[in-house]
Amino acid sequence: MSKNIKKIGVLTSGGDAPGMNAAIRAVVRTCAYHNIECIGIYRGYQGMIEGDFKEMGPRSVNNIVNKGGTILKSARSKEFMTKEGREKAYQNLVSAGVNALVVIGGDGSFTGAEIFNEEYGFSVMGIPGTIDNDIYGTSHTLGFDTALNTVVECIDKIRDTASSHNRLFFVEVMGRDAGHIALNAGIGAGAEEILIPEEDLGLERLLESLQRSKASGKSSSIVVVAEGEKMGKNVFQLKDYIEEHLPEYDIRVSVLGHMQRGGAPSCFDRVLASRLGVKAVESLIEGKTNFMVGLIADKIVLTPLEQAIKGNSDIDRELLRVSEIMST
Amino acid sequence: MSKNIKKIGVLTSGGDAPGMNAAIRAVVRTCAYHNIECIGIYRGYQGMIEGDFKEMGPRSVNNIVNKGGTILKSARSKEFMTKEGREKAYQNLVSAGVNALVVIGGDGSFTGAEIFNEEYGFSVMGIPGTIDNDIYGTSHTLGFDTALNTVVECIDKIRDTASSHNRLFFVEVMGRDAGHIALNAGIGAGAEEILIPEEDLGLERLLESLQRSKASGKSSSIVVVAEGEKMGKNVFQLKDYIEEHLPEYDIRVSVLGHMQRGGAPSCFDRVLASRLGVKAVESLIEGKTNFMVGLIADKIVLTPLEQAIKGNSDIDRELLRVSEIMST
Amino acid sequence: MSKNIKKIGVLTSGGDAPGMNAAIRAVVRTCAYHNIECIGIYRGYQGMIEGDFKEMGPRSVNNIVNKGGTILKSARSKEFMTKEGREKAYQNLVSAGVNALVVIGGDGSFTGAEIFNEEYGFSVMGIPGTIDNDIYGTSHTLGFDTALNTVVECIDKIRDTASSHNRLFFVEVMGRDAGHIALNAGIGAGAEEILIPEEDLGLERLLESLQRSKASGKSSSIVVVAEGEKMGKNVFQLKDYIEEHLPEYDIRVSVLGHMQRGGAPSCFDRVLASRLGVKAVESLIEGKTNFMVGLIADKIVLTPLEQAIKGNSDIDRELLRVSEIMST
Amino acid sequence: MSKNIKKIGVLTSGGDAPGMNAAIRAVVRTCAYHNIECIGIYRGYQGMIEGDFKEMGPRSVNNIVNKGGTILKSARSKEFMTKEGREKAYQNLVSAGVNALVVIGGDGSFTGAEIFNEEYGFSVMGIPGTIDNDIYGTSHTLGFDTALNTVVECIDKIRDTASSHNRLFFVEVMGRDAGHIALNAGIGAGAEEILIPEEDLGLERLLESLQRSKASGKSSSIVVVAEGEKMGKNVFQLKDYIEEHLPEYDIRVSVLGHMQRGGAPSCFDRVLASRLGVKAVESLIEGKTNFMVGLIADKIVLTPLEQAIKGNSDIDRELLRVSEIMST
Repeated sequence: MSKNIKKIGVLTSGGDAPGMNAAIRAVVRTCAYHNIECIGIYRGYQGMIEGDFKEMGPRSVNNIVNKGGTILKSARSKEFMTKEGREKAYQNLVSAGVNALVVIGGDGSFTGAEIFNEEYGFSVMGIPGTIDNDIYGTSHTLGFDTALNTVVECIDKIRDTASSHNRLFFVEVMGRDAGHIALNAGIGAGAEEILIPEEDLGLERLLESLQRSKASGKSSSIVVVAEGEKMGKNVFQLKDYIEEHLPEYDIRVSVLGHMQRGGAPSCFDRVLASRLGVKAVESLIEGKTNFMVGLIADKIVLTPLEQAIKGNSDIDRELLRVSEIMST
Repeated sequence: MSKNIKKIGVLTSGGDAPGMNAAIRAVVRTCAYHNIECIGIYRGYQGMIEGDFKEMGPRSVNNIVNKGGTILKSARSKEFMTKEGREKAYQNLVSAGVNALVVIGGDGSFTGAEIFNEEYGFSVMGIPGTIDNDIYGTSHTLGFDTALNTVVECIDKIRDTASSHNRLFFVEVMGRDAGHIALNAGIGAGAEEILIPEEDLGLERLLESLQRSKASGKSSSIVVVAEGEKMGKNVFQLKDYIEEHLPEYDIRVSVLGHMQRGGAPSCFDRVLASRLGVKAVESLIEGKTNFMVGLIADKIVLTPLEQAIKGNSDIDRELLRVSEIMST
Repeated sequence: MSKNIKKIGVLTSGGDAPGMNAAIRAVVRTCAYHNIECIGIYRGYQGMIEGDFKEMGPRSVNNIVNKGGTILKSARSKEFMTKEGREKAYQNLVSAGVNALVVIGGDGSFTGAEIFNEEYGFSVMGIPGTIDNDIYGTSHTLGFDTALNTVVECIDKIRDTASSHNRLFFVEVMGRDAGHIALNAGIGAGAEEILIPEEDLGLERLLESLQRSKASGKSSSIVVVAEGEKMGKNVFQLKDYIEEHLPEYDIRVSVLGHMQRGGAPSCFDRVLASRLGVKAVESLIEGKTNFMVGLIADKIVLTPLEQAIKGNSDIDRELLRVSEIMST
Repeated sequence: MSKNIKKIGVLTSGGDAPGMNAAIRAVVRTCAYHNIECIGIYRGYQGMIEGDFKEMGPRSVNNIVNKGGTILKSARSKEFMTKEGREKAYQNLVSAGVNALVVIGGDGSFTGAEIFNEEYGFSVMGIPGTIDNDIYGTSHTLGFDTALNTVVECIDKIRDTASSHNRLFFVEVMGRDAGHIALNAGIGAGAEEILIPEEDLGLERLLESLQRSKASGKSSSIVVVAEGEKMGKNVFQLKDYIEEHLPEYDIRVSVLGHMQRGGAPSCFDRVLASRLGVKAVESLIEGKTNFMVGLIADKIVLTPLEQAIKGNSDIDRELLRVSEIMST
C-alpha cells in the first residue's frame, strides 16, 4: 500500500548522540530491503538547503553500527528557519527525486520537520536521537542508555579517588532541561545526592543530607548535578557554598562535558536504533507521515510529531524514591 | 501493615550475574531504611544449611554497586534438595531470628524458595538474576543488559580482525535454552546471521544466506550462535560444515564463554537492581510472599513465583524480523 | 644478608594513582615470600602518626591487583611536617615492631621519607606512584600508563562529537608541572595541537597552527592542554581568545579532571607495580635504604631518593617532533 | 641525503594488530611532511601483485589512529612466495612510481621484504606489528600492549564469576611460539599459575602448585595458558587431567581467541606506532634499507631485517620470578 514513496532522504540534526549511525544504517538497509532508494543528507537541514546529498546503499553503511557520532554530520541551520531556506531545500529534494524524509534528532529537529510537512506536504518521520531523553513519546531516546554508561564509568573512576582521599565530589552531567541522566546515572553510580531541574532540593536540605551522610559513616560522597539544575548556583558555586558551611569536607568538582555525547553505542541503543529505523521507513511506506517512532512499554509505536514536540518527558517519581532509599 | 517482618535474609544462588551486588545493596539499604534487620547468607542455599550468615548494615554494602559477581558468593546445593537439608536451613534461620527471605537467582533458585515457602510457610521473594533473560515475568533479568554490552564489545573486536582478513567468524554466546543474548547482541553487533534455539534456520538456509551475503559485496561476516542452538551441530562442527560447502570462506570460531557473566554492571542493571531490591523488601513488609519482582513495560511488578518458574520468556518476533532486514 | 628487617610497613601518600593497590599487594606478598611480617599503614603519614595500622598477609590483598585507588587510603599530613609529628610516628612504628618502610607516592612523599630516614636512621624505600610521570629515576610512574588510556578514551569520545559538528575542542588534562600526559595522550588521540608547560608555543603560533589545520581540510580539531600550561591564560580564556580571532571556529572546552586518577590499572601498570614492589622489599632485605625503585630502559633500578626528588623528568624532544609531524 | 625516494608504498601483512592503522597514518603523514608521495597497498603482498593501490594523503588517514584492524587489509599471499609473483609485484610498483616500501607485520612479512630487497634492490623498511611480541629488535611490537589490556580485562571478568563460585579457570591466550602475552597478562591479572612454551612446568608441579594455592586459603584460581604451551596437552585436556587428580576443584576453560587481535589500540601502541612510522620513512629518506624500526630501552632504533627475523625475543626471567612471588 505504498503511497508512492520512491526515495527517502535521511538526516541527523541537533546534538549528536550514540546510536545515530545505527539508525542511519537501519533506515538505509530497510529502504534496500523494500527496494526503495535512499540518500544521505549531510549536515542536517543545512545540507538539505545546499544539496549536500549522497546515494546510499546497504554497503554504504557497513561497519558503522558501533560508531559514535554521525557519518552524516550534524549542524544547526538558521537558514532553514527562513521560508527561503526551506524553499531551496524543497527544490533540492524534488530535483533529487526524494519524496520522504527521516529526521533523526530532538525537539528542534522535529519542529523543522513539522513545518516542512505543513508547508510542502512532504512525508516526514522522526527518530528521537539525543542523550538527554527529554522527548515525549518514547521511554528512551537514542544515546540515552550509552550516555548513562559513560557517566557511571566516569563516576566509578572518580569514586576510586574520592574514597582514597575521603573526599566529596560534585559531578556535573548533561541535561539542561531534564534530569534523566542525573537521576539514572546517580542511582547507578551510587551517588549520595542527586540534584535535578525537576526537583528543587534546596541548599538547606542538601547541607543536612551531607551532614547525615557523614554521620552515617560514609567517608566519601558523590553528588550528581544536572547542568540545568535550578538552585540558583552553578556547580562551582555549590562547592563554595558547601565548603563554607561544612568545612570538614574536602570538596572537588568534575564537569563531565561533551564526552557524554560520544563513544560506541551500547547494545541497547544499537538494537533500539535498528528497530526505530525499520519502523520509520515502513511507516512512511504505509503512507503515514508527521509521526515520531518511539519506544513505549518495550514496543515501537508512533506518536504525532506535534505531541512529541509539545509533550513533557517527566522523570519517574519512583526513581526519586529509590534514590533516597539507596543513599541510606 | 508490616506482617511482623523483623529480619530479612538475602542470598544469591545459581550462576552469578552482574547487578547481583547492586541488588544485595538495595535489599540491605531498604531494610535499614525501614528499620528492619538484615543478614547476608553466603553461598546460596548451601550457606543457609551451614548457617554461614553475616549481619549487614548500610555500610556493609559500600562501593559494591559497580562490582561484578556476588559478595555473598553463589553455589548449587544438592543438600537443599533434601528434606533434611531444608530442615537444617529452616532451623538456622529461626535461630538467627530471620523470618523472610530474598532470593536473587534464576528458575532453579526460585523453585527452592517456593518449596521452602510451601513447607515452612516462610515469606519469600525472588529477584531475577541471570544473564540469560530466560525468566517469565520480567522483560529484563539482572545481568542481561551487561552481558549484551560485553558481547557486542567482544564482537566489535572480532569484527576488526574479521574485516582486516575478509573472514567469516562463528561467535558462540551464552544461552542454553534461550536465544535472547544471541538475538539482541547479534543485532547490536551487526551479525549477518543469528542462530538461536527458538528458530531452526536449517543448514541449507544458512548456506544460502552466507552465499547471498558474499554476493552482496560483504567481505567479512559474523554469525552469532547461541550455545543451545539446535541444528544438531556444535559451533566447531558448523564451521567444518560451512568450510566444506563454501571453501572460499576463511572461517574462524570464537567461544566467548564465562567472561559474559562478569564485569561491572551497566547503568541499566544497576538501576534495575536498585528498583527490584526496594520492591522486594517493601513487598515482604506489606505481607506479600511467594512472588518474584520483575520489570514489565518499564514498571516494577509482582509475578507469582510459580508462574515465573513455569512460564516461558519468549523471544520477540519483531527482533527476528529486524535482524533479517538489517542483514540486507 | 638481611640487615635485621623483621617487619615492613607500607603506605600510600599524596594523590592516588591506578596501580597503587597492585604495588601494595606486591609488597605484602614479597614480604610473605621472604617470611617477613608486613603491616599496612592507613592514610599515609597521618595514619603513621595516629598508629592506624593493620597486619597484612598474602590473603589480605586478594582481588585488589585490578582495583583503582588505594585500599590503604591516602592523605596529606601537616603534622608529619613537624618534629613532634614524626616523633609520634616513629614511636608508633617502634611499638609495632616495624623497622622498615615502603612509601608509595610522589616527590612530596619521598621528601617525608628522606627526612624520616635522616632523623631516625629508619630504612625507607620509595615506589613512584603518580599519574603525572614527573619523577626523576623512572621512565614510568605508576598510574601514568593508565591515565594515558583514560585520556585517549575520553578524547576518542569527544572526537565523535567534534567531527559530527566540525568543532574545535580544547581538552584540559592533568599535569601541573609536567606535560607528559598531554604530550603522550595528545599524540595518541591524534590532537592537532598540544600545549604543555615545558614549551611555550605562544598564542600567535597557536592561531597560525589552527588556521593551517583548517586550510589543510581538517573539519574538526582537538587541542590538548596540560593544566599547568604557561601561556598566561587558562583553558577557558584560551577558548575566548581563539574565538575572537578565528570566529569561524565553533569551540568547546572539556576539562577531564579527577577521573584521570581512577579506574582499573592497565596491564602495564599492574606488571610494573608488581616488579617495583618485589624490588622495594628485596632491596630493604639486602640492607639498602633511602632509594626509589624505578624503571629505566625496561629494567628495575635504584635511584637515591635525594636524586629522585631533585631531578627533573624531562619530556622527550623526539615526541614533540613526532607530534608536529603527525598534525600534518 | 635523500637517495631519490620519491614515492613510498605502505602495506600491512600477516595477522592484524591494534596500532597498525596508527602506523599507516604515521607513514602517510611523515611522507606528506617531507613532500614525498605515498600509496597504500591493499591486502599485503597479494595486493602488490594485483596492483591494488591507492594514493594516500594526510586526509586519507583522518580518524584512524584509534581504530583496530587495518584499513589496508591484510592477507597471506602464496603467490608472493614465487618468483613470478614477486616479478609482477615489482612491475606494478615500478609502474606506479613507487621506489620504497614500508612493511608492517611480523617475521613472515619481513622475510618477504628481505627477499624482495635482495632480488630487486628495492628499499624496504619493516615495522613490527603483531600482538605476540615475538620479534627480535624491539621490546614491544605494535598491538602487544593493547592485547595485554584486552586479556586482563577479560580475566578480570572471569575472576568475578570464578570468585563468586570458588572455581578454577584455565584461560588460554594467544602466543603460539612465545609466552609474552601469557606471562605479562598472567601477572597483570593476578593468575595463580602461568603456563608458557618457554618453560615446561610439568604436570606434577602444576598439581602441587594448585594444591598449595588451595591450602593457602585461595578460594578461586586462574591459570593462564599460552596456546603454544608444550605440556603435551591442550587446555581442555589439562582441565580433564586436573579434574581427575584434584576432584575438589570445579574447573572451567575459557579460550579468549581472536578478540585479542582487535579493539582500539592503547595509548602506548598509538604513540609507538607514530614513532615507528616517522622513523621508518625518515630512515628510507636517509638512504637506509633492509632494517626494522623498533623500540629498545625506550628509544627508536634500527635492526637489520635479517637479525629481526632470525633473532629470538626471549622472555624476561625477572618476570617469571615476579610471577612466582606474586602467587604466594
